[in-house]
Amino acid sequence: MPAPSPALRTIWLDDRHDDTVWIIDQRALPHQLIEEPLRSLEDAARAIQEMHVRGAPLIGATAAWGLYLAVLAAPDSNFEAYLDTCIERLQNTRPTAVDLFHALEASAGEIRAATPERRVDAAREAAIAFATDSAAQCAAIGEHGLPLIKAIAAERTSDKPVQILTHCNAGRLACVDHGTATAPIYLAHEQGIPVHVWVDETRPRNQGARLTAFELAEAGVPHTVITDNLGGHLMQHGMVDMVIVGTDRTTREGDVANKIGTYLKALAAHDNQVPFYVALPTSTIDWNRRNGLREIPIEERGAEEVRFIQGWHEGSTHKVRLTPAQSPALNYGFDVTPARLVTGLITERGVCEASEEGLTSLFPEAQ
Amino acid sequence: MPAPSPALRTIWLDDRHDDTVWIIDQRALPHQLIEEPLRSLEDAARAIQEMHVRGAPLIGATAAWGLYLAVLAAPDSNFEAYLDTCIERLQNTRPTAVDLFHALEASAGEIRAATPERRVDAAREAAIAFATDSAAQCAAIGEHGLPLIKAIAAERTSDKPVQILTHCNAGRLACVDHGTATAPIYLAHEQGIPVHVWVDETRPRNQGARLTAFELAEAGVPHTVITDNLGGHLMQHGMVDMVIVGTDRTTREGDVANKIGTYLKALAAHDNQVPFYVALPTSTIDWNRRNGLREIPIEERGAEEVRFIQGWHEGSTHKVRLTPAQSPALNYGFDVTPARLVTGLITERGVCEASEEGLTSLFPEAQ
Repeated sequence: MPAPSPALRTIWLDDRHDDTVWIIDQRALPHQLIEEPLRSLEDAARAIQEMHVRGAPLIGATAAWGLYLAVLAAPDSNFEAYLDTCIERLQNTRPTAVDLFHALEASAGEIRAATPERRVDAAREAAIAFATDSAAQCAAIGEHGLPLIKAIAAERTSDKPVQILTHCNAGRLACVDHGTATAPIYLAHEQGIPVHVWVDETRPRNQGARLTAFELAEAGVPHTVITDNLGGHLMQHGMVDMVIVGTDRTTREGDVANKIGTYLKALAAHDNQVPFYVALPTSTIDWNRRNGLREIPIEERGAEEVRFIQGWHEGSTHKVRLTPAQSPALNYGFDVTPARLVTGLITERGVCEASEEGLTSLFPEAQ
Repeated sequence: MPAPSPALRTIWLDDRHDDTVWIIDQRALPHQLIEEPLRSLEDAARAIQEMHVRGAPLIGATAAWGLYLAVLAAPDSNFEAYLDTCIERLQNTRPTAVDLFHALEASAGEIRAATPERRVDAAREAAIAFATDSAAQCAAIGEHGLPLIKAIAAERTSDKPVQILTHCNAGRLACVDHGTATAPIYLAHEQGIPVHVWVDETRPRNQGARLTAFELAEAGVPHTVITDNLGGHLMQHGMVDMVIVGTDRTTREGDVANKIGTYLKALAAHDNQVPFYVALPTSTIDWNRRNGLREIPIEERGAEEVRFIQGWHEGSTHKVRLTPAQSPALNYGFDVTPARLVTGLITERGVCEASEEGLTSLFPEAQ
């Protein structure tokens, strides 16, 4: 039996069956809230690959739980080779979010360090640790991002809300809790600071229109869904006070890979002097890469995600074709926003400049 | 009986019934090709307002034909007052495309100058003249834009096609023939210059995915449909050689109102040194306005265009909801690209800089 999921808990171990991890199948949101059991490595891998779950931190947490399910089913012999195969399967699900690789590395380390009898416990503890740390990091991101919103609110002479634009879903549903980009927004809302969120629908998979809008509606945060085309116009007309987005991988020099289209919003923010912030937990930093445009692998997904779209009609979901039958389509999942367009990075340790100097000032251990 | 519509003729007088003008109801494309008769002023006004037809030049042509249908049904007395009311009805359909106002002004001038017995002929001749001129202007735009494509092709060492990105539909379906942005593309294709078009789907109404893709597929021009989010990434990676878009209104100083999202592509083109051209017939220039951002009226359309989308499923069109039921949406139809981001304007008289100097060098009569 699944635990209830208050405040959109996104992944949890069944409270009675140790071989079952629950997720929300996010493909059905906002129209249906479907909880889905994962009972094997392959269940977890498919859930990541086919985007039942998505969002960099949640991909990491799901991978850690997937490794736990794998260890539960481990053969008696050749454990190391088995573990390597399982890790490889999970690594090959999605290429861009680095949290996946970080979570697997951390879990694998704990599992390998454990005695054979302790492996299952080590895998479970590592998954819980990743999820707990991730939620705590998101909460801290909220605390550090809040003053940025407060500062804009303080300059207001009217009770006009602080207008925040976000792209894709870097909310609770992308994480274990709080979200990254949304954490400061939720906190501001809870503290009575008037905020309003412009939600980019985020084609092709519409994580904004489906997931961010759903989350914000659940939390009672005022918001408006817009097409991905509208943000530039809103910024030209003073209707956006700040942009906050998440990231799937941030390089040592502050380049940011995020959902396709983020770069266009960063350009518009820069052209209109709108501050552009990126919120991220440590798990999303790739200290081994410098130039995001050259070095971050960008996932190419199926053309059908562009040619078809799913929506709600008369009580069920339907998939409809948008293009001529014979027209091909191309679908990259992410783009890279160069550090020069990023006003600041909001991390669990504070806000810094999007640069090596900025990041290592907060994370001196990475120097 | 409608005339056949070879090469996507977009508006035509019935060859046997003088009281019937035919259009293609573009809302059903690319899934169905539905020809629709207009038999009254109100038919024409509704066809413009509800976007059975769209595209600046075609809006102008439909308005001119609408005025013809109005004159056909004119009362015996108070003709001037009647004509004013009819013009006002057509003017109030859509605010941004200036061709509407120019076409009505030209037709009204001819009608008012005619004797009562000649009014119907004058209205018909004015509508034909607008359509004929518009098609000729588009053909000339093709001739003037072609060398820009040829120049890129000439620099190629491989047989890689010239990669052209376009936003929305500024093709035959937006015009009477040829299109504006597509005219040089069609001409290059006809002359055997390898071209490939990146077609922005253009949310919310997907004129790119529906209409531009349909047109290009019909003409056999290689193309790929992309989400509106992808263009920046393609430009960052050298996958776009030039951008050509249309416009609904261009100011005296070269600012360009076009379909929402155009500004974002212009920013990306500028950031990646990709030439950004705007193709337009004279009817689209508003000599009376200078600053596009401040002076061009931007149409706000219904939120339902964002919250719902229409597509094809099992032999018929279906409309599905994309957002949570309770989430509001906002929908502006156009944005303004400042002249500083425009490499050049392709007009029927040649290519010029997007500036007052540039425009008046081609149109000295407007000085």
